[in-house]
Amino acid sequence: MHTTSDEQFLREAIRLSIEKMQAGEGGPFGAVVVRDGQIVGRGWNRVTSANDPTAHAEIVAIRAACRTLKTFRLNGCLLYSSCEPCPMCLAAIYWARIDSLWYAASRDDAARAGFDDAWIAEQIVRPPQEQSLSIRQALRDEAIAAFEAWLRKENRVEY
Amino acid sequence: MHTTSDEQFLREAIRLSIEKMQAGEGGPFGAVVVRDGQIVGRGWNRVTSANDPTAHAEIVAIRAACRTLKTFRLNGCLLYSSCEPCPMCLAAIYWARIDSLWYAASRDDAARAGFDDAWIAEQIVRPPQEQSLSIRQALRDEAIAAFEAWLRKENRVEY
Repeated sequence: MHTTSDEQFLREAIRLSIEKMQAGEGGPFGAVVVRDGQIVGRGWNRVTSANDPTAHAEIVAIRAACRTLKTFRLNGCLLYSSCEPCPMCLAAIYWARIDSLWYAASRDDAARAGFDDAWIAEQIVRPPQEQSLSIRQALRDEAIAAFEAWLRKENRVEY
Repeated sequence: MHTTSDEQFLREAIRLSIEKMQAGEGGPFGAVVVRDGQIVGRGWNRVTSANDPTAHAEIVAIRAACRTLKTFRLNGCLLYSSCEPCPMCLAAIYWARIDSLWYAASRDDAARAGFDDAWIAEQIVRPPQEQSLSIRQALRDEAIAAFEAWLRKENRVEY
């Protein structure tokens, strides 16, 4: 069951999804990151206004929360999104180590409004040669030097 | 088969993967976006230095290319990455409408250096209730108002 505060944070994400879309920022999506009952990052879709195809609400909110908390790890944080995240944003939520996700509208609701990311989810799990994107590999031997150098680096910061 | 210029762009991505890692920017990953034979965006991993878990090389390069070209659609562009992209970056490449991807090291090479994103790929394709992230839904009826407002908006910019 959700609590009053879960509803409150989801409603803030929904509020952003409408207000910022009406202001011409981008698509109708909003998100907030919460820690210890406080909003530490707000985000809304800015793809078309910022010329940034990665500026989905969840990614913008994660980046804002990391700025607020001065960290690249959001353990202990919850993300509230006006809509079920696309594969890019869901992977970003995992990379950010967020604990818990609440969403309101479903991916099917988004698809009916023209935001259909099911094709991306289908593509990225296929072997490279079976994806619609042309994907090729070369110079592997030269590239692995970077990993060898990383493992030798003494003061490396892992993430 | 790859051409001399494909090798040249991959080598620039590999160069960035080493140089920027050694400079303390983040993990050993580099990428460049190319259009009409010219590099229009460079990226390298900045997760730990920028406190941004989404600042993977490919995403940084896509954002840079979009700034250069003043667009959110990179049709006609190629992305060269020092390593096979993680699920977040691969989805971002699709959202950016990039045509073609070249990579050098494989995801298995990265995993051997401690960068194992296979678990994220496994999680994000599961139904929400079967993922390791806690995922819950509420207030759907309130959120779909944003999509209705979007479809009514006259000057909307689609992406």
